[in-house]
Amino acid sequence: MITKPTLILDEEKCKRNIAKMVSKAAKNNLILRPHFKTHQSLEIGHWFKNAGVNCITVSSITMAQYFAKEWNNITVAFPINILEIEEINDLASKVTLNLIAVNKESISFLNQHLRHPVNIFIKIDVGTHRTGVLPDNYNLIDSITTEISASSFLHFKGFLGHAGHSYQCRGIEEIQKVHNEAKSIMKTLKTRYESGYPQLQISLGDTPTCSVAEGFEKVDEIRPGNFVFYDITQEQIGSNSYNEIAVAMACPIVAIHPERNEVVVYGGGIHLSKDVMIENDTKVYGKIALADQNGWGDILEDCFVKKLSQEHGIIKVSERLISQFKIGEFIYILPVHSCMSADLMKSYLTTDGCKISMLNSNL
Amino acid sequence: MITKPTLILDEEKCKRNIAKMVSKAAKNNLILRPHFKTHQSLEIGHWFKNAGVNCITVSSITMAQYFAKEWNNITVAFPINILEIEEINDLASKVTLNLIAVNKESISFLNQHLRHPVNIFIKIDVGTHRTGVLPDNYNLIDSITTEISASSFLHFKGFLGHAGHSYQCRGIEEIQKVHNEAKSIMKTLKTRYESGYPQLQISLGDTPTCSVAEGFEKVDEIRPGNFVFYDITQEQIGSNSYNEIAVAMACPIVAIHPERNEVVVYGGGIHLSKDVMIENDTKVYGKIALADQNGWGDILEDCFVKKLSQEHGIIKVSERLISQFKIGEFIYILPVHSCMSADLMKSYLTTDGCKISMLNSNL
Repeated sequence: MITKPTLILDEEKCKRNIAKMVSKAAKNNLILRPHFKTHQSLEIGHWFKNAGVNCITVSSITMAQYFAKEWNNITVAFPINILEIEEINDLASKVTLNLIAVNKESISFLNQHLRHPVNIFIKIDVGTHRTGVLPDNYNLIDSITTEISASSFLHFKGFLGHAGHSYQCRGIEEIQKVHNEAKSIMKTLKTRYESGYPQLQISLGDTPTCSVAEGFEKVDEIRPGNFVFYDITQEQIGSNSYNEIAVAMACPIVAIHPERNEVVVYGGGIHLSKDVMIENDTKVYGKIALADQNGWGDILEDCFVKKLSQEHGIIKVSERLISQFKIGEFIYILPVHSCMSADLMKSYLTTDGCKISMLNSNL
Repeated sequence: MITKPTLILDEEKCKRNIAKMVSKAAKNNLILRPHFKTHQSLEIGHWFKNAGVNCITVSSITMAQYFAKEWNNITVAFPINILEIEEINDLASKVTLNLIAVNKESISFLNQHLRHPVNIFIKIDVGTHRTGVLPDNYNLIDSITTEISASSFLHFKGFLGHAGHSYQCRGIEEIQKVHNEAKSIMKTLKTRYESGYPQLQISLGDTPTCSVAEGFEKVDEIRPGNFVFYDITQEQIGSNSYNEIAVAMACPIVAIHPERNEVVVYGGGIHLSKDVMIENDTKVYGKIALADQNGWGDILEDCFVKKLSQEHGIIKVSERLISQFKIGEFIYILPVHSCMSADLMKSYLTTDGCKISMLNSNL
């Protein structure tokens, strides 16, 4: 029996999300290198292996170390942190390791300190402006590839982009536009550099474009992550429907305030994260469903998480529904950002009652 | 040597913050029952013990179990979660346990299932409207105290409030106003109920009012928590100065973008939390300082954390300063919300190089 906030995982929905992405990648002749930063779990990794996936993406060296126990081809899709050179050398001695360059300095450093082979993707800023080399900065690209060539351990693998600005999109048409722009940037680079590097790969991938955009010509691999669980942010963007969301936080009701149609649950920012979504000019920290025989049911209309403090979740409910809630029962909160909620909870409980561990689990 | 995002703790500043609050409580003849949800550390708890503190507040039964190893008088300042009745009974058999009632149902439940003595505070909504009994709802208060009287294990301890709306204040005058209102609500209740319960206590406490408000007549105890570390939100409210902030996140620089005066660090939402502060209509996820011989120096003007994703921190820096930053060096980020950052990091490293563990540490 659960008594505290617990991240519930619907294994069936999750496996369906995996199968759908595997099939889309196959249809478009793409390598699927899923981003495992969302689930951070060796066990959920097995579901990908069983679906035929054999290479992965992570976002830290720590995560790469964890997954290196069972995966031998790993891209760390985060700019090289030169302070972790020892861990990089250790990983590179064990698995095929792909790292991300956004400047020449880190490559010069690897040049001097690397003792095992590492593949380098140059990260291209395809419009998100988080990081990456600007796509027309050929001087910088050339100086990085030159520096790579100077090392016997470094190998230039290709160009990698992440169209994170697809998160600002609403609906398929806008997502398709972001995808086309990113693809066009990558196509220009491929055309320019493929004579010198005939094996070079183009790697793209964020959940919105990989979920619903069409046309992946000139793209070699995709790296979506969030799709394994989805969440209400992705639903708002247009990546998925509510019934594809595979995780929900079960939270005990501890107070009911009929005078303002609010319910208080044990479940706060340290469980869901403070990530927020704006809907109709209102801050939304989660949406609400009730338990049913398969896990949780449909989203409750006019109900949402209005506020979170460290352990408190304040839920606005409709006047019609407030009398249905009872102290000591559970409410299911569909998270705004499933990656952040999973990272906070450090484990899952499936709707079938199985515990699933992840990186840094206390299980 | 540190290589990854690390929460650095300035022990001297922290101990000064503790000493200042201890002295304020003594001056006002108040019991100091500090809220340990901020630091969640037995070791930092010792610093409070050494300063003469002998009772504490926590925000979950899990935290109470952890601190019960060394503390024998604990208030769980969160509405009773009846699902944790086994843990409550176990705790009540070991320590003086104070729980918080916001409704009659949970007290009726305890009445039937409790096997050891528990003190009950009725939580009063002093204006925050997060939870609590409305101060003029005497019917509800009376029905709760009646239910308490019906049990041989329950004892009515008094009224507890948390003026969390002080977080909306800017400056001492506004904080004092919130404090006066909360105090006045509690004074009315004390006057009404003290003939029936001559020992009843009034417990108040949030970091802004406890830090800078004056006048605590009719108040028996205070429960501030965040003051142990403070943060840039508390500085904006007016609770503290920058040089009283006792924690900062050391983050390696991994990319520099001079074309838009931005620096990218390894340090994101899974380290700092997504808690945000608004300053001059701009979202701020942290402020910046550089390492110095004592830990970190002054806040850098015109620099701030502009955006956080899972592992990336995007820092806006001034044009004057950008040339000073180098790949592989550290930036110190002063957190928006130190409680959330501490909860995420699960340990501290003091400026003297000592590791300090906390609840769920992997140390």
